[in-house]
Amino acid sequence: MTITRLEKGPRMSQAVIHNGIVHLAGQVGEGATVAAQTKDMLARVDRLLAASGTDKSKILTALVWVANAGDVAAMNAVWDAWVDPENPPARACTEARLVAPKYLVEVMVTAAL
Amino acid sequence: MTITRLEKGPRMSQAVIHNGIVHLAGQVGEGATVAAQTKDMLARVDRLLAASGTDKSKILTALVWVANAGDVAAMNAVWDAWVDPENPPARACTEARLVAPKYLVEVMVTAAL
Amino acid sequence: MTITRLEKGPRMSQAVIHNGIVHLAGQVGEGATVAAQTKDMLARVDRLLAASGTDKSKILTALVWVANAGDVAAMNAVWDAWVDPENPPARACTEARLVAPKYLVEVMVTAAL
Repeated sequence: MTITRLEKGPRMSQAVIHNGIVHLAGQVGEGATVAAQTKDMLARVDRLLAASGTDKSKILTALVWVANAGDVAAMNAVWDAWVDPENPPARACTEARLVAPKYLVEVMVTAAL
Repeated sequence: MTITRLEKGPRMSQAVIHNGIVHLAGQVGEGATVAAQTKDMLARVDRLLAASGTDKSKILTALVWVANAGDVAAMNAVWDAWVDPENPPARACTEARLVAPKYLVEVMVTAAL
Repeated sequence: MTITRLEKGPRMSQAVIHNGIVHLAGQVGEGATVAAQTKDMLARVDRLLAASGTDKSKILTALVWVANAGDVAAMNAVWDAWVDPENPPARACTEARLVAPKYLVEVMVTAAL
């Protein structure tokens, strides 16, 4: 079965499509606050889903990491405004220090085509 | 291909079924100890798998987070008594602070229908 | 649909194969440094993928945890030399304390058959 990889770098692909599912790499966003970063991060998710031929209404799962557990409410406010209320994913969210200290939030998403 | 979402909230679904696989949201449990929380958490997993038309004998993967790495043995004791010994999943377990401080353990599961 | 489980233990399987995809359990490696552990860990991934009938050219996703965010560059150097540059996975990497303090890095992989 075909595997299609989008935005291939030497370390990872930003999206991997196989058997009707797109797996996105962990996405982060730019900005000074967790709210700004979440908004930018989710715009990147939207862009990669579109490039894969799908959209957030077909999202299956999301793994969310926040660098500070105290930022969850601010992240969720942006998330709740973004997510399709008819089609929310199975989600888990934990605290985790991210690989670059400037990043406050990261998400890894799968979606159906 | 159809996507079925169970227990939809404004932020996430507790289960998302697609292409013969159910993806559960991160599950936590109530209780004063990690053992009690693990038992309650796995009962929630059982309940969601049943609602999805499957059970733990068809579990594929589990991501486990414990708030304190020192709690792994106590969590594992409950896990080992729960898991189908003929059908254990691919599992990873790391330490992670969870989004509400009272929670000591969380799991995200996928299973085949 | 058939589920095949490799290296079944009482707690988890090291690989679970279902519907054309293999899900590996979290893999760690032995060694005194994060570089040595990453090399050993990825050799275990190669071995489990081979036992499942596939290889790293068909890798779909990778979740990487490093015990110390400062070790990411050393882990990535080994990763970049290992990954198939034509076929890199969707990957996320966060910091997480692992269940045994001696382990500095862990990875959970999925691959197509």
